[in-house]
Amino acid sequence: MDKKRIFSGLRPTGKTHLGHLVGVLLNWVKLQDDYDCFYAIVDYHALTTEYADPSKTKDYIFEVAVDWLSIGLDPSRSTLFIQSHVPDHAELHLLLSMIVPIPWLERVPSYKEQQRELADRDLSTYGFLGYPLLQTADIIIYKANYVPVGEDQVPHVELAREIVRRFNNFFRPIFPEPEVLLTKTPKLLGLDGRKMSKTYENYINISDEPEVIHRKVMSMFTDPQRIKRNDSGRPHLCNLFSYHKLFAPDDKVKQIESDCQKGLIGCTDCKEYLARQLTDALSPYQEKRRQYLSKPDLVHEVLSKGANKARTVATATMAEVKVAMGI
Amino acid sequence: MDKKRIFSGLRPTGKTHLGHLVGVLLNWVKLQDDYDCFYAIVDYHALTTEYADPSKTKDYIFEVAVDWLSIGLDPSRSTLFIQSHVPDHAELHLLLSMIVPIPWLERVPSYKEQQRELADRDLSTYGFLGYPLLQTADIIIYKANYVPVGEDQVPHVELAREIVRRFNNFFRPIFPEPEVLLTKTPKLLGLDGRKMSKTYENYINISDEPEVIHRKVMSMFTDPQRIKRNDSGRPHLCNLFSYHKLFAPDDKVKQIESDCQKGLIGCTDCKEYLARQLTDALSPYQEKRRQYLSKPDLVHEVLSKGANKARTVATATMAEVKVAMGI
Repeated sequence: MDKKRIFSGLRPTGKTHLGHLVGVLLNWVKLQDDYDCFYAIVDYHALTTEYADPSKTKDYIFEVAVDWLSIGLDPSRSTLFIQSHVPDHAELHLLLSMIVPIPWLERVPSYKEQQRELADRDLSTYGFLGYPLLQTADIIIYKANYVPVGEDQVPHVELAREIVRRFNNFFRPIFPEPEVLLTKTPKLLGLDGRKMSKTYENYINISDEPEVIHRKVMSMFTDPQRIKRNDSGRPHLCNLFSYHKLFAPDDKVKQIESDCQKGLIGCTDCKEYLARQLTDALSPYQEKRRQYLSKPDLVHEVLSKGANKARTVATATMAEVKVAMGI
Repeated sequence: MDKKRIFSGLRPTGKTHLGHLVGVLLNWVKLQDDYDCFYAIVDYHALTTEYADPSKTKDYIFEVAVDWLSIGLDPSRSTLFIQSHVPDHAELHLLLSMIVPIPWLERVPSYKEQQRELADRDLSTYGFLGYPLLQTADIIIYKANYVPVGEDQVPHVELAREIVRRFNNFFRPIFPEPEVLLTKTPKLLGLDGRKMSKTYENYINISDEPEVIHRKVMSMFTDPQRIKRNDSGRPHLCNLFSYHKLFAPDDKVKQIESDCQKGLIGCTDCKEYLARQLTDALSPYQEKRRQYLSKPDLVHEVLSKGANKARTVATATMAEVKVAMGI
């Protein structure tokens, strides 16, 4: 039986950090076993917020591609590509725009949220409002059945489903309604306890050198009520402890929990341990990264082949769409 | 010296009527002598208002192409093509959307105007708001210097200039600021004295048979104060008389004016005369139309060659745009 298809994408607006790795990418790697996966570096989307200075986008695209390959996204099984290499996304976005009421876009929760969060940028643009519409085009141009997303992205997939229903109803039933593939990925917060994000500068990149990791971990927030080393700690409230749960062996996690509660270890001990664990955990990726970085042509070839494969599917869909829409 | 470039387009939402011919197309024909003209059948734009039933668009596109060739648009001098055959328009539209504030689009006078005029359709769509942005993409992707428009379209070219300035300022100066080429084309009103438009069903198509022309002319509004045949008429207030000024020889126009004022001729006489004049004036186009209609392959070849030429220019522009925007 044919595998069901998945589409997902990430914006090349910075280096890949632990939040991406733990929350998104390791899940993508797993999904490759059971699904026909299309994973895109969505550079059009990067422009929605980075338009004022896109000078680093090209570098980020390459870095992201290297990261994806290093952590185990496998071009022999999945289609890995750059969104703008398949301009059909832009054409479908335009064609869908004709049938999408503006209030549908204004209602997407992230619209006003992000305008608030990124108050230093002018996000009152036509492109920013159309962001979730472009996401819809990204997904349905491959007739994807599933979109692996976190809770916060569910409204975007809901919008895609609404747009699909409207299209299929107006014209002809070309598109399947994409479904959310909710995966309980652990949520890793940033160094300061907020969402890990480039914007907040509270991230650890998967390419960070051991010294950088050490410095960043040392700056992490822990239980604020724990002042002295032998104060009793509250691991379940400590952001650092949530890292241990991901990167330390189970028995070690239990020991840390107990030692912290009893005031037997200090936060600095904990941080030193986490820095080592992270360095070890990231070292195999970093080894592979170095290999890919030394072979940029290979990386570009992967992306080029991925784009060819994606384009074949996208072009076929667009031919159907144009017939349906009478142009 | 190289000729300056012109871009203009018409939407394939119906057959070509006298309003198009007199107000737009005969001017386009003349401009071919002095400019490098790109004329597009803008089918993406047709969808902004016709999305609910685009079933006739393909036929209209073909009819419009036949009309353009019949009235003297010359594919050996001008680039005649269908917008959607150059999907780069859609991609530029998307990329420009990132830097265009929504209020710039909401302020375009035709936005609210058309929503009022076409109150039977739901025009609160994202695509309808983006209409003038797509027009900007249409114009500047060819780095057009001039856009031949009527007064009502001037704000659209102004918007294009604003967007060009913003783009050139954010990234690099790729685009010339397109200028309005205001041509005093005679304005021909519809049968009922309103703007000639498919929406109002008050048009005479350039393909109308003599009987149809006769029937439509007979239904025209004239001076409402003239009840009896020997009432004194007011030609300067009579919509019919404005047709005479375009289609009758000068001396005949003067005679009609004088006879009408003196009550020597009736409105029916005037209409019979106009119907004959229109039939004669349209007959050479209609003869050529029949020839092109009998050679659809030739028409498609013209459009295909035009698209190839347009695409070459558009693709080159898009390569510059992508470098400038860092993708």
